Amino acid sequence: MALLEDLKWRYATKAYDPIKKVKQEDIEKIVEATRLAPTSSGLQPFRVIVVENRAVREQLAEGAFNPECMLDCSHILIFASWDSYTPERIDEVYNRETDERDLPRRRFSRYTDMIKELYASQTEEEHFIHTAKQSYIGLALALAQAAELRIDSTPAEGFDNSLVDEVLELHKYGLKSVSLLYLGYRDVENDWRAAMKKVRVPMEEFMIEIK
Amino acid sequence: MALLEDLKWRYATKAYDPIKKVKQEDIEKIVEATRLAPTSSGLQPFRVIVVENRAVREQLAEGAFNPECMLDCSHILIFASWDSYTPERIDEVYNRETDERDLPRRRFSRYTDMIKELYASQTEEEHFIHTAKQSYIGLALALAQAAELRIDSTPAEGFDNSLVDEVLELHKYGLKSVSLLYLGYRDVENDWRAAMKKVRVPMEEFMIEIK
Repeated sequence: MALLEDLKWRYATKAYDPIKKVKQEDIEKIVEATRLAPTSSGLQPFRVIVVENRAVREQLAEGAFNPECMLDCSHILIFASWDSYTPERIDEVYNRETDERDLPRRRFSRYTDMIKELYASQTEEEHFIHTAKQSYIGLALALAQAAELRIDSTPAEGFDNSLVDEVLELHKYGLKSVSLLYLGYRDVENDWRAAMKKVRVPMEEFMIEIK
Repeated sequence: MALLEDLKWRYATKAYDPIKKVKQEDIEKIVEATRLAPTSSGLQPFRVIVVENRAVREQLAEGAFNPECMLDCSHILIFASWDSYTPERIDEVYNRETDERDLPRRRFSRYTDMIKELYASQTEEEHFIHTAKQSYIGLALALAQAAELRIDSTPAEGFDNSLVDEVLELHKYGLKSVSLLYLGYRDVENDWRAAMKKVRVPMEEFMIEIK
């Protein structure tokens, strides 16, 4: 029941202790959980940007819905997705797979040809909607890993995407920001959410069983 | 390191043992992890449909990219999101929150008025993109919980959404299907993927540190 206990423990922290820092090895474990996330066709169409630098945070905080989290938390993870699917990106992933598995490079070509054709028929906007969705799988595993380590976190969509993209120069990587995860340790005295009961839709309404 | 070990253990299973069934209590633990997922504004704009029935699977399998998973796995979870955000749906969630926390019902009205206004300015298509994204957080936690229980799973987008919506009559709930999770136990002899090394983009490329 480890994961369920971790998920019950966590909550969207609203005030962070500005002094207490998350250890680098813990940051790496959290990003590792994200790196292991399954994604559509195994393409992993997103990356995680880690920000600790004060000056950078101050720039990012401009457009943030919770600027105090941006400034006081220990680290910020930015989940940023591919701006588009390209045949080159798909080949790079599948070449790595076949190389690491000692298989011939074109082993999965029937499949990759199919997905290349599919993505060629879509717009870049549709690509980014799809790559963004995949990044939420990574976001979820990151916050679960943080909770396991008893590190507080706040997933957030409330920020200025274009500002974040610009400050972090994400276009250089062919990425666009999707969501953030603030990481650190709660400031219990200043967090009105810390003591609040977790409320969810009841199970009998959430799960629909087809008999 | 429990979660990291669970994530290394799991893989997208391609062949299921058609006899071995997942216990009902384990299905409930998996759905519970999903129910505890954090979501944008806490709205939980998705539900999980659990299908075990053979006749229903046969109908769903028609449009599935991996029909044999659909037929041979133990249970199918369908992640289905709200077709739209409405003031009524938002009020229902926040009324539950305030009621369960013994707070006055309008305690969060400044916030809920803001999000109602935001969603009123968007199209239903935009709503569904957003609710679908949230469901991926739930999908990720479900597969992590399955892995912790050493239950195999396969997340899938490869199916006929309109067929699934129609067979499960999801419009009755104001829901539309987004993704599936097949659950069960691997059939090692028939699964070409079972023995394959897990390949991911290297950490130094996946994590971008801003100093």
